[in-house]
Amino acid sequence: MQTYTAPLRDMRFVLHELHGGIHDNAEFTPELLDTILEEAGKFCSEVLLPLNASGDIEGCHFENGVVRTPAGFKEAYEAFNEAGWGAVGAPPEFGGQGLPHAVTHLIEEMLCGCNLSFGMYPGLTQGACRALEKHGSEELKALYLPKMVSGEWSGTMCLTEPHCGTDLGLLRTKAVPQQDGTYKITGSKIFISAGEQDLTSNIIHLVLARLPDAPAGVKGISLFLVPKFLPDANGDAGVRNPATCAAIEHKLGIKASATCQMNFDDATGWLVGQPHKGMAAMFVMMNAARLGVATQGLGIGEAAYQAAVAYARDRLQGRSLSGAKYPEKPADPIIVHPDVRRMLLTMRAYNEGCRALGVWVANALEEAEHGNAEAADFVALLTPVAKALFTDLGYECANLAVQTYGGHGFIRDHGVEQYIRDARITMLYEGTNGVQALDLVGRKLPANFGRSLRRFFHPVSEFIEVNQNHPHLGKMVQGFARAFGALQLATGFIAEKGMTDPEEAGAAATDYLRLFGLVALGFMWVRMALIAAEKAPLGGPDAAFYQAKLTTARFYMERILPQAGSLLFTIKAGKASLMELPEAAF
Amino acid sequence: MQTYTAPLRDMRFVLHELHGGIHDNAEFTPELLDTILEEAGKFCSEVLLPLNASGDIEGCHFENGVVRTPAGFKEAYEAFNEAGWGAVGAPPEFGGQGLPHAVTHLIEEMLCGCNLSFGMYPGLTQGACRALEKHGSEELKALYLPKMVSGEWSGTMCLTEPHCGTDLGLLRTKAVPQQDGTYKITGSKIFISAGEQDLTSNIIHLVLARLPDAPAGVKGISLFLVPKFLPDANGDAGVRNPATCAAIEHKLGIKASATCQMNFDDATGWLVGQPHKGMAAMFVMMNAARLGVATQGLGIGEAAYQAAVAYARDRLQGRSLSGAKYPEKPADPIIVHPDVRRMLLTMRAYNEGCRALGVWVANALEEAEHGNAEAADFVALLTPVAKALFTDLGYECANLAVQTYGGHGFIRDHGVEQYIRDARITMLYEGTNGVQALDLVGRKLPANFGRSLRRFFHPVSEFIEVNQNHPHLGKMVQGFARAFGALQLATGFIAEKGMTDPEEAGAAATDYLRLFGLVALGFMWVRMALIAAEKAPLGGPDAAFYQAKLTTARFYMERILPQAGSLLFTIKAGKASLMELPEAAF
Repeated sequence: MQTYTAPLRDMRFVLHELHGGIHDNAEFTPELLDTILEEAGKFCSEVLLPLNASGDIEGCHFENGVVRTPAGFKEAYEAFNEAGWGAVGAPPEFGGQGLPHAVTHLIEEMLCGCNLSFGMYPGLTQGACRALEKHGSEELKALYLPKMVSGEWSGTMCLTEPHCGTDLGLLRTKAVPQQDGTYKITGSKIFISAGEQDLTSNIIHLVLARLPDAPAGVKGISLFLVPKFLPDANGDAGVRNPATCAAIEHKLGIKASATCQMNFDDATGWLVGQPHKGMAAMFVMMNAARLGVATQGLGIGEAAYQAAVAYARDRLQGRSLSGAKYPEKPADPIIVHPDVRRMLLTMRAYNEGCRALGVWVANALEEAEHGNAEAADFVALLTPVAKALFTDLGYECANLAVQTYGGHGFIRDHGVEQYIRDARITMLYEGTNGVQALDLVGRKLPANFGRSLRRFFHPVSEFIEVNQNHPHLGKMVQGFARAFGALQLATGFIAEKGMTDPEEAGAAATDYLRLFGLVALGFMWVRMALIAAEKAPLGGPDAAFYQAKLTTARFYMERILPQAGSLLFTIKAGKASLMELPEAAF
Repeated sequence: MQTYTAPLRDMRFVLHELHGGIHDNAEFTPELLDTILEEAGKFCSEVLLPLNASGDIEGCHFENGVVRTPAGFKEAYEAFNEAGWGAVGAPPEFGGQGLPHAVTHLIEEMLCGCNLSFGMYPGLTQGACRALEKHGSEELKALYLPKMVSGEWSGTMCLTEPHCGTDLGLLRTKAVPQQDGTYKITGSKIFISAGEQDLTSNIIHLVLARLPDAPAGVKGISLFLVPKFLPDANGDAGVRNPATCAAIEHKLGIKASATCQMNFDDATGWLVGQPHKGMAAMFVMMNAARLGVATQGLGIGEAAYQAAVAYARDRLQGRSLSGAKYPEKPADPIIVHPDVRRMLLTMRAYNEGCRALGVWVANALEEAEHGNAEAADFVALLTPVAKALFTDLGYECANLAVQTYGGHGFIRDHGVEQYIRDARITMLYEGTNGVQALDLVGRKLPANFGRSLRRFFHPVSEFIEVNQNHPHLGKMVQGFARAFGALQLATGFIAEKGMTDPEEAGAAATDYLRLFGLVALGFMWVRMALIAAEKAPLGGPDAAFYQAKLTTARFYMERILPQAGSLLFTIKAGKASLMELPEAAF
């Protein structure tokens, strides 16, 4: 039996207390935002959570090109759109509610915590809408966006082909211009989430393909909009376009999300953006998708934590090492054991840290969209970190939850093994976490001579400067400063070595991303601790909340952040021991 | 498509070169042992590997109390016994071949690498045989062991009940003595691997239960032999005993291994060993099983490594960061990338290190069984370390293999996602890895005033003393000595703090076990490096093998062992941040 209660108190803390109410205005009062979050939590727990295990067990069905989602998904999807949850982040001009990113981000976290497979359907549509908004012609936007924002039609991203995923320069799908200004698209795509389904009356594929005169490699890729049904004169789904599903994949998890092999066979499409500039348009979608995947990791991490806490309170086994805590019961609940608490606190520290960091990035994205270049730099820098870190940690949470359950965690009925299977994809899609690490060291670090990097390093340095002698938390800040020092040294090492030898940067990439991520979470934790230290002594109903923040912060600093030291050590080891072994010797 | 080639060269290295041919004698010449390993590898690759994916997909079937194993399992099981693989480790007096533990251990590794689910069936039988050998009466041994050794009959371990796993003191199954000297056993057991199956004509359950006059807790538990069919006058399977399977579990992995809910309903049983001393008898089985599970982790780790290497050589994607390595191909194989090599080398360093450590422990077990008390101490100390470390690392290997495959790793057809699902159980059963850690710090460290500990610390100290100024590898030995120093400090910390407060030991347990394990692997790696450094310069066909050992040793020292520093730091943080948070605040 899976369980989920939206962590509303912590969400409010992050939104209003930690990152300041930057979105509070006449339109979005804090009270309104809180109400929206509360309602979203209710919807996710009541409508989506009950379909999570059943959808996993049933999976999607494929027959004669038709995909059927598991029982209940269609009804839930209708309820989801009726309540407007698919439209919360879209611009009002296309029927959206224009909520700030920070809030849609938190809603997504709940959605993914309750039902990651379900979340894929609206999630992909939102990504497609974003790319269309930015790069589509006015006509395409007017014709497609209102129906996609309302959820009547859905969207997909068609990038991967059997022989190319990370290296899109190899892609082969062709687009041939027609006299009427449309294109005929031909090729095979794989791993297309929601490429076919029975939830919507039309599916709008955004497809990467090559024009006949395209240069080789990634500089010859264009983006096309290819609807399943061509819109008729009224803008409704009309003639069937030959964009068909050949099969769906059997996979480890997210079984209720249809992962389709798609064939485009002279399908009619429209160019989105400029010829040969498809990668730029696709990156709009991809960057949003990467932050979305980060949120998926966090969502499952939180669900896993809640499941583990519930079991640790409930399962009676053995006695506390310091003497029976519940002598009237046949045994103590396992939450009395330090090693079980270690697992629970690790999850808690990860989740609350990632939530705080995620909202910081979401706020920056908001500012970036209003023209703040510094904020845009910050988002670019933090996107690969959040994607890889949140998904690695979300998966670790899923594993810790199973470990808390012991052998029972391995059994389907308890519902936690699904978290392992579902979370595992988040480390792989939208660029594997190794690819995120290369993006960080290869593109984002050197970008603009390190300017992006300063968007993170400067606020951290300032914070340390101001708070290192804090009366209560000075020691904690100093501990954090040591980890930040390790990150600075690692950055210098990579900047120097990587300049002359990109393999040196590549050799350090994964460890560096983890070090960066742990320091970023550490920054969130010291900042949260400072707020909690002020408010905990005030007493009242929230005192326990702030006290728990302080304890968890201390746990993070003492038990997680010390990894920074070892990471610096391995980063500085350099590439030699990685590159020395001849290929044949593996 | 899964693939597996037994790592025979490395097995020979560990068996003969690293740990010296302690088993070489007139009966078991090195050549004979090598031939046996080669034949075992062939059998596993040819007969068991092809059933691994199909068995996973089909799973076990349950209908009306009958369990059907997947297609091909019955035939494979017959071939397995016909070739004598189930009997390799059993004593000759019961029809076994009496091979040394080190060799049966390596055979088990191959078995688990090719088909963990299949391996469960003979594996459980072997554990049951061992307990019977040590604690059964001569009559029980004569009646049951020959048929169990030959594989005609199988064995199980019936410990867990729905409300108790780790805490067996809570168990409720009852045994009522009968006038004829037998007992009537009544109770429900869960998670009984191979509790019911269609491979053998009889199943011999070893069941923990309480006699009517039993003291409460673990001191009131006795062990009983309860056959599915009572042997008739000829010793063949006769009347059906009411020991029945009520259901099988749906679970994350090892789907071809039937995990049964068993009901004993006045089933006839025989006492094994002394009344109320069942835990001691069970621990014989459990300790052997823990080392067996360690081997399972290694087996899957090796299979995962091989799968990842094959894919990394085959998959063309992107170009080497130092310029195209295969300009004639559309892209380079991903094995050129440092981050991919990091994953492959991590797996390789884990697997070869665990193989070396596993054989060391197996050799000590051999000596212990010949009356060497020091060796027995060593085995007791290393058993929880090997169980938790090998399975944690095996699971990490499975995950790294999937990560190497990228999105393709998530798809069933590639066969690597199964390794994640199968490996996951090894961290849970036979005592979760957290329970192993508690066993290490709570029982094994303080045992005999630290005498057991010295069985590991002394040889390591001596080695460092002798080799720290080694002309070629002195620096490596010094690096290892630093990690060993961290382990010594951590041990002192736990010994001191844990003496007055067992929760302090509990708080450190998991990190301490990992630190211990990494140092133990490090010891194997420096020792292997020393041998390789002598032999690599000799040239010849093995030069590449020794050179690869040196490179991998260096990788382990530079990239894995530095974790020791952070672990010491977190161990020394103590229990406070774990125990402070009130239960209600989680």
